[in-house]
Formats: sequence, C-alpha cells, structure tokens
Amino acid sequence: MKLLIDTLGADKGYEVIVKGTLNNMLKNEIEVVFIGEEEKIKKIVENTQVDKNRIGYINTSEYIENTEEPTLAIRRKKEASIPLGLRNLNEDEFDGFLSCGSTGALLAGATLITKRLPNISRAALTVVIPTLKGASVLLDGGANMDCPPDMLRQFALMGSAYAKGVLEKNNPKVALLNVGTEEGKGDALRKETFKLLKECPINFVGNMEARDLLYGEQDVIVADGFSGNVALKATEGAAMVILNSLKDGILSSLKSKIGGLLIKDSLKNLKNTFDYKEYGAAPLLGVKKPVFKAHGSSDERAIEAGINKMVKFIDNDVISDIKKYFEEEN
Amino acid sequence: MKLLIDTLGADKGYEVIVKGTLNNMLKNEIEVVFIGEEEKIKKIVENTQVDKNRIGYINTSEYIENTEEPTLAIRRKKEASIPLGLRNLNEDEFDGFLSCGSTGALLAGATLITKRLPNISRAALTVVIPTLKGASVLLDGGANMDCPPDMLRQFALMGSAYAKGVLEKNNPKVALLNVGTEEGKGDALRKETFKLLKECPINFVGNMEARDLLYGEQDVIVADGFSGNVALKATEGAAMVILNSLKDGILSSLKSKIGGLLIKDSLKNLKNTFDYKEYGAAPLLGVKKPVFKAHGSSDERAIEAGINKMVKFIDNDVISDIKKYFEEEN
Repeated sequence: MKLLIDTLGADKGYEVIVKGTLNNMLKNEIEVVFIGEEEKIKKIVENTQVDKNRIGYINTSEYIENTEEPTLAIRRKKEASIPLGLRNLNEDEFDGFLSCGSTGALLAGATLITKRLPNISRAALTVVIPTLKGASVLLDGGANMDCPPDMLRQFALMGSAYAKGVLEKNNPKVALLNVGTEEGKGDALRKETFKLLKECPINFVGNMEARDLLYGEQDVIVADGFSGNVALKATEGAAMVILNSLKDGILSSLKSKIGGLLIKDSLKNLKNTFDYKEYGAAPLLGVKKPVFKAHGSSDERAIEAGINKMVKFIDNDVISDIKKYFEEEN
Repeated sequence: MKLLIDTLGADKGYEVIVKGTLNNMLKNEIEVVFIGEEEKIKKIVENTQVDKNRIGYINTSEYIENTEEPTLAIRRKKEASIPLGLRNLNEDEFDGFLSCGSTGALLAGATLITKRLPNISRAALTVVIPTLKGASVLLDGGANMDCPPDMLRQFALMGSAYAKGVLEKNNPKVALLNVGTEEGKGDALRKETFKLLKECPINFVGNMEARDLLYGEQDVIVADGFSGNVALKATEGAAMVILNSLKDGILSSLKSKIGGLLIKDSLKNLKNTFDYKEYGAAPLLGVKKPVFKAHGSSDERAIEAGINKMVKFIDNDVISDIKKYFEEEN
C-alpha cells in the first residue's frame, strides 16, 4: 500500500505531519510519498528507524490557502500540494491521499481530478463525531449546501459502507438528523428523504434530534450540508464554551484551584472522550479513490490515527462497497 | 394589566405555575386569571399575601397533550386550556397569555384564534439562549419548517423589536445563522436572505456560525425553523452531556469527590450562566396580542421571570413596534 501525504497547509506546520506519519509507519507496513518541501522533510526523516526505501518525495512549497476560492485555486495552482497529490493519486501505484489543508480545495480537487463514482451526484464530507460510545460519522458536514432528497439517500448509503468498513460496526445504525424523532417530522426535505431511506438496503433507524449527537446511539447521521454543519458547530461551540468557563471558574480562587487539581483525572477523561484527534481523519465519500481530510490543527497523534483509518478504508475496500450500492442505478 | 395564566399541561404540574405567578404578583401590580382546576388552585392562593381581588379563575381540567396534532386539537378541544385562554385573550380586558403547554398547540392556536398581524406570513417561535453575555434570542426556534427568504426577513424585524423592547438592547445586533461568516456563504436561502437583511432598517451584522451561539455577541439570531431548532438542540445536548459526564467523573472516586466540593461554586456559577430559567419565557411573535411560551419543565422561578418578560413586552408595546415595520408593506 502506497500513500500520498500532504505536509502543507496545516495549522501546526509540516513537522507534526511528518512525525505522525513516521510513527504510523513503525506499526503499519505502508509506503509513503510526502508532498512538500523535500529538504525540510528529509531532515526529520533522517532520524527515524523507518526504512528509507519506503519513503518518497514530491517536492513543492506551494499550497492552497483556506481563504482562496477552491475551484479557481485548483485550476490555477497546478503545483499546489492538493492538486499535485490528487493528480498522482490517479496513477495506479498510489492507494490513497491525506491532507490537512483547505477542505474546500480538497473537495473541489477530488471532484475535478479524482472524479466521482458512477451514479453519485456529489462527493460528501464525512465528519467523525467523538461520542460517549466511540465514533459516529455525520455526512454531509458542510460540503453540499442545497441537497435534494436523493442526495441525502446517497449520503446514507455511503455513510453506512464507511461505518461498516472503518468503524467496524456490523450493521451500522443510520439516522436522519431532524427536529423530532417521529416519522413525518421536519421540513419537506426530511419528509421526502425519510421515505427514501426506508427503502434503502441499510439499517435505517429513523429520525434523530441534534441534542442526542454526543450520546453516540447512532453510527451514521445523515444531513444536508447546511444543517449538518450547523449541528457540528453548535455541538463543538457549546462543548468549548462550557469547558472554558469551567476552567476560568476553577482558576478564579485558591480553593477551586485545589479542587481543580483533585478532579484533574476526570477532566482529562472527559477531554479524551470528546477528542476528535483520537479519530484522526475522515474521507470524502463518493470519489473514485481514497481521499482523506484530517483536521487543520491535527497533531502527531491525529495524523497517526488518520492514516490508520485510511489503511482500514483501503484494506476493506470501502469504495467497492459503495460502488455496489450504486452500480445498478441508472 | 390583566394576564391569563395557563396552569395545565406543564411537566411539573400546576403548583409551580401558581406559586411562581403569585411570587411575581408580590412585586408587579398585575391582575391574573388562572386557567385550570379552580378548586385546586384556590388552595394554593389561600395562603398568599396577594390581594384576592387581583385573582380570577377560568375553570377547566382539559388540556392539549404534546403528542396531539396541534391544529386538530385546537379545533376539537374547545375547552382545553390553550384555546380557552386564547379566546379570552381576544377580549379587550386581557393583555397577555402565558402557557407551559404544547408548543405546537400554542402556535396553532395563536394563528387560528389570536391571528397574525397584517403582512406577516407566519408566527415565529422565539427562543431565549442564555449566553456568556446575558440573553440572546433565536427565531424561528422550530415552528416554521420551510421558510422562504422573506419569512426570515420578517423574523429579523420582529426579533429586533423584541430585543429592543424586552432585552433592553439599544440597537440590537441581528445576525443570520450560517455555515461561515463571509457574505456569500451558505445555501440558496441564506444567500437570498442576506441580501434582504442588508436592506432592512435594523442593525444587521452579517452571518454568524452556530459555534458562537453561547458567546452572546449577537442579540438576535435569524434562522429557518429547521436549522434554528437543530442549532438549539445541538447546543443544549452538548452542554448537557459535558456537564453530566463531568459529574459522573467527579463522583467516580473519593479524591475527585473532594475536588468536586471545592469547585462547587464554580460549577454553580456555570450552571447559573446557562440556565434558561433565568429568562423565563419567550413570545410567539407576529400575532395580534402577547402570547408567551414558557418551557414545559419551568419551575417557580422560571414562571416568575417569564411573567416579568411578558409585563415588559406589554409595557413597551413591542407589538406596535412590530406593526410599524410591516404596516407600509402591501
């Protein structure tokens, strides 16, 4: 297995990406080609135990910024790490591509360069949600704004295949994000989608409310990109504000500082439970080859975990599973 | 000022509603008519200092359950507390109606019985969000599922009038809930609404992301009922899960239990900051007379606070302010 790893455009710089990848290589028998500033990367690689024959380079210092218009940037900046990586991914020798760079550019690139699977209307951004019961995935996480019901049906099928292949759920529970749990709830899009999902060859468990996201009872949560993104950001924001306010409160007096020390382990456990870094990265589903997006602020551990997910995705050939769902449709 | 208070259909029973109302009457010079089981209510009223001449009754034991189809229930159960209260509200002698009962029934009743103001297409469910900087309001909180851009414009105008009159914001900041802050972000509905809001005679500050809801930088958040409801429930769910997990963690060992005692004040402050009960109740905006919805699980304090909000709403004649926005439209 040979993977392309984009070392550019990440919040914490190329070092954590290279180190996280090397840590992974100590455990997984993969080959890697780093995309980025070769000389700099080599200085880190020098000190590793990993066999240098398993490591290659594609030298570039150009990358696409988060602020750039994605499609335009993909077309114009041919030597930027994302289009360069994706063009290489089209070659048979490569099995997957991982990037911490611009989500929009990765999505536009995956659509324009990697291209979609037959009968799939749009690539979906899968987002992993750390929950009380492990990982759930939500899709679409914000890539596709105006989704018709059939697109949500496609997300459901692709998400189910992903949960089966990578999250190791036997019969993944697929739920539709809605404002209530009863059938018939929601807007026109949800009502129509509900009907379609009932007919799908997946374990559709019905509607779920956004307040239940962190309980993790469902494995795959289906949403249009707008409300999916709203649900994810509201969850993230609330968790952040609560934890920061608690921290400020603890630091406000000597008594509570001592208390804070005594509950340190509990706080740490809590942080670990909801730490997305444990889950590393998630794929853009619906394209012809594995394209993974890791969080912009990923650390070494997140990169190592993200590559694990990609390896599992490739080993279990999730893309073939997705293809099967759609090949009879025309 | 004479208010109708629905004592039925609340999670915690009629007692907390009656007691909360009486507590309010000790501070505010209002008259109240309780709707509910007169004999039971009178037993609580007997023990109050409040002048009995300020208190009246409309006797009924019927109410609309949360599970009933709202419009049907409003039409059929004429003697249920909500339709009964709203029919009375149409009389000149009454100035406002507050209920903890079924949101759907209250909304259907407000539309069918109280009726909408001229040029307003739908009544909106206003929801108060407790934030780090006090209260914000979001509308629509889940009453209107498929909203065209002009409906969102109406929500913005009504929300601004409410924030001015009740939350005492001089020049309330009105924001559009979206997936990014830049203009041009979001789905077709958001793009079109953004253009309309720029032309409104309000302090429109642009898009906001759901992750910023609890920071309270914005006073009025405009959303369609679907994504507004998703944002509120995701926020509520995340806060709940984090706080409960923390509690479980603290209770898991003797050391952390002691720690928990030492940070008790910080935890209490945190809980108070984000306690919706401080803010009591919020109105259905766009109807001809004040109709307020309090949380189903309101306690005495929430009812007392909710009536305060309604008194302010009536005193500052928010409905006339809303009317002014729409009277020139045809």
